[in-house]
Amino acid sequence: RSLATSARQSLKIGMIPADGIGHEVLPGAKAALQALGSSIPRLEFIDLLAGFEHFTKTGTALPEETVEALQKECDCAMFGAVSSPSRKVAGYSSPIVALRKKMDLYANIRPVTSVSPNPGEKPAVDLVVVRENTECLYVKDEKQTVGPHGKEARATRLITERASRRIGEMAFKIALNRPRKHITIIHKSNVLSITDGLFRETVRAVPALHGADGRYDSVTVTEQLVDSAVYRLFREPHIYDVMVAPNLYGDIISDAAAALVGSLGLVPSVNAGDTFVMGEPVHGSAPDIAGQNIANPLAAMRSAALMLRHLGYGEGGDRIEGAIDEVIREGRCLTPDLGGKSKTTEVVVEVVKRI
Amino acid sequence: RSLATSARQSLKIGMIPADGIGHEVLPGAKAALQALGSSIPRLEFIDLLAGFEHFTKTGTALPEETVEALQKECDCAMFGAVSSPSRKVAGYSSPIVALRKKMDLYANIRPVTSVSPNPGEKPAVDLVVVRENTECLYVKDEKQTVGPHGKEARATRLITERASRRIGEMAFKIALNRPRKHITIIHKSNVLSITDGLFRETVRAVPALHGADGRYDSVTVTEQLVDSAVYRLFREPHIYDVMVAPNLYGDIISDAAAALVGSLGLVPSVNAGDTFVMGEPVHGSAPDIAGQNIANPLAAMRSAALMLRHLGYGEGGDRIEGAIDEVIREGRCLTPDLGGKSKTTEVVVEVVKRI
Ligand SMILES: CC(C)[C@H](C(=O)O)[C@@H](O)C(=O)O
Ligand SMILES: CC(C)[C@H](C(=O)O)[C@@H](O)C(=O)O
Repeated sequence: RSLATSARQSLKIGMIPADGIGHEVLPGAKAALQALGSSIPRLEFIDLLAGFEHFTKTGTALPEETVEALQKECDCAMFGAVSSPSRKVAGYSSPIVALRKKMDLYANIRPVTSVSPNPGEKPAVDLVVVRENTECLYVKDEKQTVGPHGKEARATRLITERASRRIGEMAFKIALNRPRKHITIIHKSNVLSITDGLFRETVRAVPALHGADGRYDSVTVTEQLVDSAVYRLFREPHIYDVMVAPNLYGDIISDAAAALVGSLGLVPSVNAGDTFVMGEPVHGSAPDIAGQNIANPLAAMRSAALMLRHLGYGEGGDRIEGAIDEVIREGRCLTPDLGGKSKTTEVVVEVVKRI
Repeated sequence: RSLATSARQSLKIGMIPADGIGHEVLPGAKAALQALGSSIPRLEFIDLLAGFEHFTKTGTALPEETVEALQKECDCAMFGAVSSPSRKVAGYSSPIVALRKKMDLYANIRPVTSVSPNPGEKPAVDLVVVRENTECLYVKDEKQTVGPHGKEARATRLITERASRRIGEMAFKIALNRPRKHITIIHKSNVLSITDGLFRETVRAVPALHGADGRYDSVTVTEQLVDSAVYRLFREPHIYDVMVAPNLYGDIISDAAAALVGSLGLVPSVNAGDTFVMGEPVHGSAPDIAGQNIANPLAAMRSAALMLRHLGYGEGGDRIEGAIDEVIREGRCLTPDLGGKSKTTEVVVEVVKRI
């Protein structure tokens, strides 16, 4: 069954705030979804546990019950943010990385778009990072040994044809729905000729998989080394439309792109698989500002909108995004990361009013 | 023997233009060094071959004779830039990556500094990327196999205590000579707890290696995840002084930092070991503009200055850098990457006049 076409009586959403400001921004996402009323199926929210805080209390960062609830009860989920211990903590491993793998959410889709001053105008930055979400150095296959000169640590970077193909397929699908229909493959095959070579060749080969149907013929493809891609991102962001990248480059590039639109607090994402989708703001748990009611809720709210789109409720997504754009344009109610003085909860109220 | 203290009758410099604009910018470096006259030892330039162009002609990207000449005859070297094939080419492997390893040039030092409008003023961006230069994914230990779902490629990421310690030591030494004396360790230990954990802990442990002498007590140390470091680099570049990083993060971060100062064409580097140093502009071979005499020679000229500093000729370095800053401030003779209309050779003449 396709995620976007199944008719649903209700929408069960797993809510996983996890750590820090995750607890403060997810209520905004919930409020935005609720504000849509009967234009989407009846909503059921299921609160679920995970995170570093949970680990320090219980010894488990991602409880089995959370994974089970997502797999068996939920249609989709919203994730907050995770904290990272400042030193290695035995037995701890990032629950978000684990969740992406366990739920096979192989695509991390991160649209980075600036809000133009006038509704009709083209935004200065308008790109989507399509990040592979299950492999690369994130397979976490690491070990330490002792050699003649001391400790030696090795990690495996895994790139498979299968994962590269499905993320490539996702990138083409997304590009096809955008006016410019352009893909830039990000890699470092001048050093990693085998792993990044496989990624690049596999993505390039996606259109040919569809035989003569010409499905992706209108999509243009270029490529760029990751170092120079970051450089050009800052100098000529308009050259990018869809950027498809292996996991780690995608992680870095999406943060770089976020700097272009004023704040990480604005950038949403979804972790998408073939049968499940989980919204997640790109920002972290921000322990320095947690608990002060000043975190920007817009990335989480936009993530909820993006999640709706992937479930086939594009109109709902439009309404949430339109309301957010209005609040940003008006510029009167913004959190400190955007130069404003408003509280998280005040921004949520302003957006909800406009939905 | 220490690089910086050996008394020399002459300075033998291996010149390796390699590919593309490497051929156009190295003459600028040579002219700058020659302009210093008798304030430095007599110069001898030895032209050496390497590069992708050389590979396509001969089947070898880094001839044995080049490595031997560097090891047996030269005191130091200047490298231009290498091209990367746009598709995998059997038998080709980057000569710059090989050279760094063969000459044990374990530190890639990349100062990124903006030129302030007035000579007395503090520059807006003033940082140094200290990049480990021999390991990480650059060990190029890659292989491809075939699994149940198609091709699978794996690369090894190697981080050793020894390499992390010496790059850490280099970072502390450099920080000690800067007014702010601050180090930021760049890593991704929330995912790579073992490899990046080893890097971070080893760098942090450097001061303790020196026992009670307190050599590095005045240096402050913080750390940052690579994704958020790139984000903050664009938003708050002033928070950085010395950034020390494993090889690949260092590669990406130095390009990101270069975007802050207006052009990659301004950013120099040295590849430094304990007994050899090689200057190298951070930019690539720029095939799109090669042969037009419009490449910016300033990064190569600054790299020559930086090389001199590492050899103990700080005054010579100052004179070259001072002349470059003047030309930038005057703003009349600049290459197109800086918004000017001048030729490579014209810029070289202007700088040389002021040395
Ligand atoms: C928290 C961390 C493991 C995560 C990642 O690296 O994927 C984060 O940076 C992100 O981008 O979602
Ligand atoms: C050409 C390439 C192998 C090289 C690197 O990745 O080190 C370049 O990007 C650099 O920064 O010197």
